[in-house]
Amino acid sequence: MFGIEYPIFAFSHCRDVVVAVSRAGGMGVLGALYFTPEELELELKWIDEHVGGKPYGVDVVMPAKYEGADLGDAEELLGKLQSMIPQQHKDFLEGLLAEHGVEPSTESADRVLLGWTDQTARPQVEVALKHPIALLANALGPPPADVVELAHEHGVKVAGLASSAHHALKQEAVGVDIIVAQGTEAGGHTGEVSTMVLIPDVVDAVGEDTIVLAAGGIGRGRQVAAGMALGAEGAWTGSIWLTVEEADTPEQAVPKLLAATSRDTVRSRAWTGKPARFLKTAWTEAWESEKSPGYLPMPMQFMLISDALKRIGRSGDGELVTFPVGQIVGSMNQVKPAAQVVYDLMEEYIEAIERLNTITNAD
Amino acid sequence: MFGIEYPIFAFSHCRDVVVAVSRAGGMGVLGALYFTPEELELELKWIDEHVGGKPYGVDVVMPAKYEGADLGDAEELLGKLQSMIPQQHKDFLEGLLAEHGVEPSTESADRVLLGWTDQTARPQVEVALKHPIALLANALGPPPADVVELAHEHGVKVAGLASSAHHALKQEAVGVDIIVAQGTEAGGHTGEVSTMVLIPDVVDAVGEDTIVLAAGGIGRGRQVAAGMALGAEGAWTGSIWLTVEEADTPEQAVPKLLAATSRDTVRSRAWTGKPARFLKTAWTEAWESEKSPGYLPMPMQFMLISDALKRIGRSGDGELVTFPVGQIVGSMNQVKPAAQVVYDLMEEYIEAIERLNTITNAD
Repeated sequence: MFGIEYPIFAFSHCRDVVVAVSRAGGMGVLGALYFTPEELELELKWIDEHVGGKPYGVDVVMPAKYEGADLGDAEELLGKLQSMIPQQHKDFLEGLLAEHGVEPSTESADRVLLGWTDQTARPQVEVALKHPIALLANALGPPPADVVELAHEHGVKVAGLASSAHHALKQEAVGVDIIVAQGTEAGGHTGEVSTMVLIPDVVDAVGEDTIVLAAGGIGRGRQVAAGMALGAEGAWTGSIWLTVEEADTPEQAVPKLLAATSRDTVRSRAWTGKPARFLKTAWTEAWESEKSPGYLPMPMQFMLISDALKRIGRSGDGELVTFPVGQIVGSMNQVKPAAQVVYDLMEEYIEAIERLNTITNAD
Repeated sequence: MFGIEYPIFAFSHCRDVVVAVSRAGGMGVLGALYFTPEELELELKWIDEHVGGKPYGVDVVMPAKYEGADLGDAEELLGKLQSMIPQQHKDFLEGLLAEHGVEPSTESADRVLLGWTDQTARPQVEVALKHPIALLANALGPPPADVVELAHEHGVKVAGLASSAHHALKQEAVGVDIIVAQGTEAGGHTGEVSTMVLIPDVVDAVGEDTIVLAAGGIGRGRQVAAGMALGAEGAWTGSIWLTVEEADTPEQAVPKLLAATSRDTVRSRAWTGKPARFLKTAWTEAWESEKSPGYLPMPMQFMLISDALKRIGRSGDGELVTFPVGQIVGSMNQVKPAAQVVYDLMEEYIEAIERLNTITNAD
């Protein structure tokens, strides 16, 4: 479909990683979430100049459900949502930060409404479609049908993330070409069903023309092979690109990611208000403790914590530092160039297939 | 190692299933938990008479940690633990049952201390080793070193369930021959790490002489193939045998198992006090609600609820009925003979390998 050499899709918020993976024969997919439309334009221009004509994609987030879908445009929405954040939550957060010696905020939080709404993601799509992208991906529910149509008019394939066969069918119904079936072990927003169980469920549910990629827990060649054995046609990866040489992951998070085992993540609402997997730290413990006021709905939880995350980063207190990552973090122990990660994945993939053939023929 | 035709291990509490799977070319493993030593003797005698000389195994539970390890023998322990169950928990449970129209208990609970202690499991081991078993498996931590030694003296291989590489190494240290690396998607007692992430973790951690079986989320041939692709040498299955023709699963649970999707399970302490996966029903909701008094430690939680489970079964109220099962329950939609399940697994396994080879050679 894309003429790529290896069926490896690499989700990353970092343009350098996107370019490195696409140039190495996989397909980089830039997460647009943190960018304003103007910033996204600059990122994509840079990618176009460096990717050497190889295919790449863009990932946006248009949640099917969130607080404020009917509250006007992005600016209006931001103001209204800010006024809806309870004082109790602000007090809990400031108390937690003070306990860990994090200094009070000196500036007003500047840009807390991220691309987690239709209002903020739609302008990102418009920017993306002006570039020669090969793929538009969407998380948190089926994208609006008119967005799928618009992408197809531009000759761009559309991928949708799904955490159950039920969700995959909804994606298929709006015309999505590729289902990224993502198991609970994945980093970031994630469902409850594991990759092992989910992939055959989704492959059997969707039609023959819909391509299924396996996501969640994939960071080694054996896992790529397992995803394909389950019926997928490729692998969608994310976490493993956080610790490559090219990544712009916050420097206080990198040592924690390298040291973490596969048991050091948690699926919690304490990041965005929807269940997402990230590093288990004093942050997640506090939000799940008896003192916690509970979580705000998307996008308010992240609006509440956005400024705090920056202050935690500056404070030098490592205990609260967390980062979205999947259980595969346990095997992310070494910083390597992104291209090397692509080659290592494919080498171990081939070894795994050879071993499977040997075992099967010997039986 | 066992001279079996297919690398499929089938854990079941039902002797008919054990025999059917072993006769079909896999290896049945009888869960001894619910049997007194006398009952276990009868079960194994029956298996010996019907298994036609094929290898089979026995699974016991000797938890590394539980309440009452130092409280004397089984009888003493039972009395002491019974007196330690708080009235608050009894009241919560009776209130919940009354809400659902379940009648009060008319008889005293007869046998509530199951084989979840060293005191109760050790006599089971003694019985098992008098029979021509090929495998002794143990869950919930490494078995005592002397039990491993005793099994080896009888020419019996020992398997241990592990939910992390760390636990697998502890099992290896006491001399276990086979690690059953079990992902979070599995039914019954289970850890947090998914099968996809866990298997390579464990395979890389243990020595070359230790055999690793993949468990958790395995109920189709594609999943067997995925487990092998991840580095395992066989598959350990459990849930899928609950709905075969030969199974003695409680009749009120069977329709619920057949109807459930992969999203209808939950990992909770509301069954035994340790995290276990079972069907999400009014039972699990109640124990996780604000009214819940919390869970008692193993083995007290099951002592508390054992009689209630029987009364729920008799009451005809389906809402509270639950049963330990993994996420694979979503693909358990049809009652088939156990031998047919074995053949279906292997047929789809071969198809998956062939598809993998086609994809890989085409790339």
